[in-house]
Amino acid sequence: MARIVMKFGGTSVADLDRIANAAKRVKREVDAGNEVAVVVSAMAGVTNQLVSYVDQTSKIYDTREYDSIVASGEQVTAGLMALRLQEMGVNARSWLGWQIKIHTDDVHGKARITAIDGSEMIERFGEGQVAVIAGFQGISPLNRIATLGRGGSDTTAVALAAAVKADRCDIYTDVDGVYTTDPRIVTKARKIEKISHEEMLELASQGAKVLQTRSVEMAMNHGVRMQVLSSFEDLPGTLVVAEDEIVEEQIVTGIAYSRDEAKITLVNVADKPGVAAHIFGPLADASVNVDMIVQSVSADGKKTDLTFTVGKTDVERAVKVLEDNHHEIEYDDLLADSDVVKVSVIGVGMRSHAGVAQTMFKTLAEKGINIQVISTSEIKISTLVAEEYTELALRALHTAYGLDAE
Amino acid sequence: MARIVMKFGGTSVADLDRIANAAKRVKREVDAGNEVAVVVSAMAGVTNQLVSYVDQTSKIYDTREYDSIVASGEQVTAGLMALRLQEMGVNARSWLGWQIKIHTDDVHGKARITAIDGSEMIERFGEGQVAVIAGFQGISPLNRIATLGRGGSDTTAVALAAAVKADRCDIYTDVDGVYTTDPRIVTKARKIEKISHEEMLELASQGAKVLQTRSVEMAMNHGVRMQVLSSFEDLPGTLVVAEDEIVEEQIVTGIAYSRDEAKITLVNVADKPGVAAHIFGPLADASVNVDMIVQSVSADGKKTDLTFTVGKTDVERAVKVLEDNHHEIEYDDLLADSDVVKVSVIGVGMRSHAGVAQTMFKTLAEKGINIQVISTSEIKISTLVAEEYTELALRALHTAYGLDAE
Repeated sequence: MARIVMKFGGTSVADLDRIANAAKRVKREVDAGNEVAVVVSAMAGVTNQLVSYVDQTSKIYDTREYDSIVASGEQVTAGLMALRLQEMGVNARSWLGWQIKIHTDDVHGKARITAIDGSEMIERFGEGQVAVIAGFQGISPLNRIATLGRGGSDTTAVALAAAVKADRCDIYTDVDGVYTTDPRIVTKARKIEKISHEEMLELASQGAKVLQTRSVEMAMNHGVRMQVLSSFEDLPGTLVVAEDEIVEEQIVTGIAYSRDEAKITLVNVADKPGVAAHIFGPLADASVNVDMIVQSVSADGKKTDLTFTVGKTDVERAVKVLEDNHHEIEYDDLLADSDVVKVSVIGVGMRSHAGVAQTMFKTLAEKGINIQVISTSEIKISTLVAEEYTELALRALHTAYGLDAE
Repeated sequence: MARIVMKFGGTSVADLDRIANAAKRVKREVDAGNEVAVVVSAMAGVTNQLVSYVDQTSKIYDTREYDSIVASGEQVTAGLMALRLQEMGVNARSWLGWQIKIHTDDVHGKARITAIDGSEMIERFGEGQVAVIAGFQGISPLNRIATLGRGGSDTTAVALAAAVKADRCDIYTDVDGVYTTDPRIVTKARKIEKISHEEMLELASQGAKVLQTRSVEMAMNHGVRMQVLSSFEDLPGTLVVAEDEIVEEQIVTGIAYSRDEAKITLVNVADKPGVAAHIFGPLADASVNVDMIVQSVSADGKKTDLTFTVGKTDVERAVKVLEDNHHEIEYDDLLADSDVVKVSVIGVGMRSHAGVAQTMFKTLAEKGINIQVISTSEIKISTLVAEEYTELALRALHTAYGLDAE
């Protein structure tokens, strides 16, 4: 017997037939003698509809009202899932965030879970009852509904798994696992059997959209074993586990890419102390997140070029901030380029193997792809290249690191 | 300065434009210096959609899950109304049943309000804040969402008005008041300026659909002054008030009709003690509500005919119950007739004026309309006639009681 949290995303509960299909998977786990909690998203499209109502009603909206409106989508799915399970003879009931309770902070619209009281659910597991939980929502210190931000149901599932000490947190979705890279681009991409939390976190942060970054982070911190698998096919998925559970390590586990960034270059900035603060301080004040940063070596020790990346949606704001601060920053020219892609190679094996970066640079050079910016972490190397090379770069790197399926 | 509860039904908040229109009416009351609570229904069509999801998922459903699903409709409207008011510069926030709290019993799907804590709302009235309340729902003793049944938002509004000691409870709807009879049938029908709670209660129970019966009953018991008025036109509506507030009493105030009943006749039932118990006991056990009952005088003292009415939707069930108990009840024949209409004449003036019933019988006779069943109460006379006479009967009675508009 195991205790399992099963999470179904929007496409997995898109309509009543799909809810019924998901319910069958729940029943299978129950019939196998497991204790089960189910976390559901809103039916696909519902959240967008509700968000559009809000956008049409108010330009700068009260996020507490936004949360109360948008959270209703998951409330409906939770009730329908409980009813469907009952109809199949499974003892089940729905739980809303304020009933459990799932406590959050008061940052409405992107709240963080602060505590979950799993005691009543655990008691009911003992009576054979399945808990069906509305994902994406909790209750704020002031008794208002607070949502966790887009994709927040993954986080609900992992937080719940930690709270009830579940053996596994299964994330059912419309893909059948985590791949070495995007299989729509690289046909030889392989499904990864097991991946460490840390690698999954890097993959997710670097552009792989299969899991919400925060949920992986939480799973890592609480040692929650996750599985990503398909709602529609009976295939084993990808296990996301602690590193020590992985026996045979690859040097490189996966290759991610992100088209969501843009490059900004300040030409001929004064090369003197404090200039970086003058640039990145105002950007931070304007809530512009800066990712990669590179500063060229200054030829004469007086002027240098500074390049960095920001989110594509933040480019206009960033440019305005820099122009407004022109007199303080002192640059000759400001260039913004949105036609870039960030390609990242990820693997815990990098820690113990030299030459991984060299392979990346050599492979890209052989294909005539110019690297614009480089950044690295302990288990990741990211390069910024022109967007038109996305597919070429991914395929070449996938082969170079020996990831191609046979 | 007055304290006012304003309730907007589904058609009054059917889409974002109508929510904006309703919000304008709220702002007008706020600008006039009044303290305002707003009760909203789900956007028209939403509740039906949610109920249909439930019906498709489960035949005999868990009403606690039904309630959680269906209550989401009002949750959305409450948030949108609060946002719209904020956008217009009005200080407003939404409240759900479990936040206020609106306590109910545990009869899910048609729960009754047991208590409302109005203290926090009253405190916020003092700070100039408008409370926007999701109608139709409260919280059960076991912390589950409980709904009040169809039309329950009227009841929420009246209960809230009682809890916060409001000066008036305005029910905004798609008609502009209560009429002497259905204006779609009788073109000379007049809008009633003031009507007593008691008369309104009879009108509502006898078929007038403008207000939910239970809300009027509650208004009567708590002395809440109600007003029925249009969301779409700037016209005075109909005031529903205590009888002593009405100076000039009509003998007859209004004429209601209901096509929702059917007639069942048992031919040649034994005329002996205990037979009625044998008939109506099993019907009550099967949850069939019986309305009018008439027993003919038995010619020989041995056999009699018994006629009564039940809801049209209960006819099949009632017939089955009676057939199943044929050996105990002993009747020669069982006739069911759904082509009937109940026409009711209502007015507190009846208490002090004789001849009101006589006018009704004479008027119907003059038009050649046969009365099948009669029942009376202190302020009401109801007759059952063939459905085809509905319009004719209403028009003739409306003229006979001097209700026609000039």
